[in-house]
Amino acid sequence: MPRVDFWFDFASTYSYLTAMRIERLAQAAGVGIAWRPFLLGPIFKAQGWETSPFNLFPAKGRYMARDIERIAAARGLPFKMPEPFPQTSLLAARMALALPNEARAPFARAVFAREFGEGRSISDEEGLAPLLAQMGFDPRAVIAKSGEAAIKESLRAETAEAQGLGIFGAPSFVTTDGELFWGDDRLEQALAWAGRT
Amino acid sequence: MPRVDFWFDFASTYSYLTAMRIERLAQAAGVGIAWRPFLLGPIFKAQGWETSPFNLFPAKGRYMARDIERIAAARGLPFKMPEPFPQTSLLAARMALALPNEARAPFARAVFAREFGEGRSISDEEGLAPLLAQMGFDPRAVIAKSGEAAIKESLRAETAEAQGLGIFGAPSFVTTDGELFWGDDRLEQALAWAGRT
Repeated sequence: MPRVDFWFDFASTYSYLTAMRIERLAQAAGVGIAWRPFLLGPIFKAQGWETSPFNLFPAKGRYMARDIERIAAARGLPFKMPEPFPQTSLLAARMALALPNEARAPFARAVFAREFGEGRSISDEEGLAPLLAQMGFDPRAVIAKSGEAAIKESLRAETAEAQGLGIFGAPSFVTTDGELFWGDDRLEQALAWAGRT
Repeated sequence: MPRVDFWFDFASTYSYLTAMRIERLAQAAGVGIAWRPFLLGPIFKAQGWETSPFNLFPAKGRYMARDIERIAAARGLPFKMPEPFPQTSLLAARMALALPNEARAPFARAVFAREFGEGRSISDEEGLAPLLAQMGFDPRAVIAKSGEAAIKESLRAETAEAQGLGIFGAPSFVTTDGELFWGDDRLEQALAWAGRT
């Protein structure tokens, strides 16, 4: 089965849009999805940005909020911006890597639903532990594993791989033949590309 | 008839994609289009950028070229990046404002076709005069009018209006009720929005 790597940052609004629809579209296209959490922060920092471009460039930030609002409404998806924005996505990303592979997608959707569907915090253990518990995991065990050196290193390696692939924003999609697509609005194109090879 | 203002910069690759399809889509949607050339340069400068973000952020620039290449291929549109990129769009924008209203769209398409269809210069009189001549205008007269204070001021006013509307990139679309849409990939959404009001 063809595969698309779905690279996302838990702080990213457009990644939320994709997370809530990618499995449905991928199934229809006969494409498998690998959920690949990474951190945009270090990539932004490497180009001189200390925060999200949506904060650095206010006109872009205002537009983004309205753009997401319109798209979410059209898709029947709730949308509420969390305070502060962006949320710190480090712990959620480490947890996603600490969980078994098959739990990664449902965990990611739960995080995104809390963060952008309800506008609640996902930056710390307090916000994330209930999601783990609802999935049947022991939050303390997952939190402990998320703090291990191997998981930290694994997230660093994922982020470095993303950067090496030319990724500069999220969501991004990479096909097995190396084509890069950026943005929720390129999801259909990425799936079509993967499906035809 | 509902109307959409199509704000574009002659140096913008994604504006090329839109220029070559907007009239066809707008006609099908029953929406009128106002072609509004402006300059992104002063807007970029106001946020501290001295050149195109595609040059400032090389990963984004490489991605943009590939993204346009794929989309142009899917639409049967030729695409070749001009050297240097971005081209200086000042003279073309002034000319577009100096021409009669009804000549603005065909002139813009001719400029974009030369610049991104053939990868040739549109930065100076030498590149633009032949396009004017082919349209039946006297290039010397248009060049002279483009240099008049009223035209220069008119372009400054257009750019200020764009900035006031919250525009930060091109192409952008603004409906009569003030909705802003950014990017060739939002054209369908903008037309649908305009058509339903």
